[in-house]
Amino acid sequence: MTDKIWINGEPSQFLDASDRGLQYGDGLFETIAVFDGHPQLLEFHLARLGRGTARLKFPFVDLVQLESEIRLASASMNKGVVKLILTRGISARGYRPPEHIQPTRIIYAGAWPAHPESNSRQGVRARVCAHRLAIQPALAGIKHLNRLEQVLARSEWSDPNIAEGIMLDTEDRLVCGSMSNLYLVRDRILSTPALHRCGVDGVMREQVRLACQALKVAWNETDLSLQDALDADELFLSNALAGLWPVRELDGHGYADHPVCRELQGYLAGRGIRQCGQA
Amino acid sequence: MTDKIWINGEPSQFLDASDRGLQYGDGLFETIAVFDGHPQLLEFHLARLGRGTARLKFPFVDLVQLESEIRLASASMNKGVVKLILTRGISARGYRPPEHIQPTRIIYAGAWPAHPESNSRQGVRARVCAHRLAIQPALAGIKHLNRLEQVLARSEWSDPNIAEGIMLDTEDRLVCGSMSNLYLVRDRILSTPALHRCGVDGVMREQVRLACQALKVAWNETDLSLQDALDADELFLSNALAGLWPVRELDGHGYADHPVCRELQGYLAGRGIRQCGQA
Repeated sequence: MTDKIWINGEPSQFLDASDRGLQYGDGLFETIAVFDGHPQLLEFHLARLGRGTARLKFPFVDLVQLESEIRLASASMNKGVVKLILTRGISARGYRPPEHIQPTRIIYAGAWPAHPESNSRQGVRARVCAHRLAIQPALAGIKHLNRLEQVLARSEWSDPNIAEGIMLDTEDRLVCGSMSNLYLVRDRILSTPALHRCGVDGVMREQVRLACQALKVAWNETDLSLQDALDADELFLSNALAGLWPVRELDGHGYADHPVCRELQGYLAGRGIRQCGQA
Repeated sequence: MTDKIWINGEPSQFLDASDRGLQYGDGLFETIAVFDGHPQLLEFHLARLGRGTARLKFPFVDLVQLESEIRLASASMNKGVVKLILTRGISARGYRPPEHIQPTRIIYAGAWPAHPESNSRQGVRARVCAHRLAIQPALAGIKHLNRLEQVLARSEWSDPNIAEGIMLDTEDRLVCGSMSNLYLVRDRILSTPALHRCGVDGVMREQVRLACQALKVAWNETDLSLQDALDADELFLSNALAGLWPVRELDGHGYADHPVCRELQGYLAGRGIRQCGQA
């Protein structure tokens, strides 16, 4: 691990072993792309974090302090990733959160991930995961630390030519990739899974929605099946670090080209939102 | 926190912040009652841990080493709790578990919990939680570190006179307490929720099952509803630390007495299994 790490504002590699982040996954995280010392889409990351703290009923979290710590961690990076973990803090044993508890801030500044730079341009191969997402409205949409489902899904394959695994919920609906949101296009209508049962409401997904508005592409947030993905003209993925990845093949099913995805990529680039393949 | 803590066999209060236990809740835990220096039901705790490591596809875990470390941590305690957390270990960012990874062992030796000693004898008051358990067969039964559902459920009440919250799944089945397993008795048939969709297969639950065999009480593992609990003659709970707690009131619904629960308590005591109210 070559990351620099700060805990509650102090350089440190070590966390108190009584922290509820470890004990119960009682926390949230954000993974932020950094270009030229600038944490991209930071206001959107902090807004989602704020939604997460409200949902989990965290005590007061000073988002202004967090913002300044994230900016500080980003300042000296040319291109990299800042990951923030915010836990409910340290407590005695027991699920019940104590009344007076101080959230723990952990900020990691690390290397850009090893995804091939060509993914955004040439598209990626994807697979359908056997592992399913549970339906849990209370935790849907937020980026919390209970991520065993993603760990199990991502354990299903080791072929480096497969960039992402597509996940269904336990009732056969299409939800997302293991680390990405997912979009279908048919007849210039973009459809994306509704995320009120499970899945993470991605920061780049919000940008895709705004781009669709600007480009007059219909945005349809709904329940979708795997068959819908196979019947689509285009399939693509989004992630705060990767930007948009066209899917050129899903378990052997090919997608020819991705005109709407290309249009969205171009729009985002024009708005100064940098993506994996453009750096 | 007055716990003594050992990490990978060394006294330490601090965990590497890159540990997957924190990053993703990628780990398991056990909470073990200690009496007179002896970790109670240790072989059952280790067996469940082993089932968890198999399910999560952990690399080799040396259970013999773990056993000896738990015994060492317990040796000087008169009455207390040893908690073990076993994580998949330290890795770079990303859900995918690396091939060569060394699990992290964290052992906490701490005070006996603050439950009133009288709970086993006088019974407890319980409530039904609004928060539901998601249906996730891949994680059901094992005691993993993704515990936000329990944290949210336990956050619902602060009345110290309510000892436990009963949880249903998202499809209205009765599952368990926030920190306990649950049993109904009607006409001397004991029914307990099947745990293949969600819930934790408790170490004390296994003892209750064995006690039922010995005492010729019918053991019926099945799907149950809240109404089944209200219609039952007896309702009681089990937990590795607490032993068996008769429920004398569930949201205002009373249970008069608990002859089968008393019989089971007596049997367990006779087998040398100590419980909260007997120490």
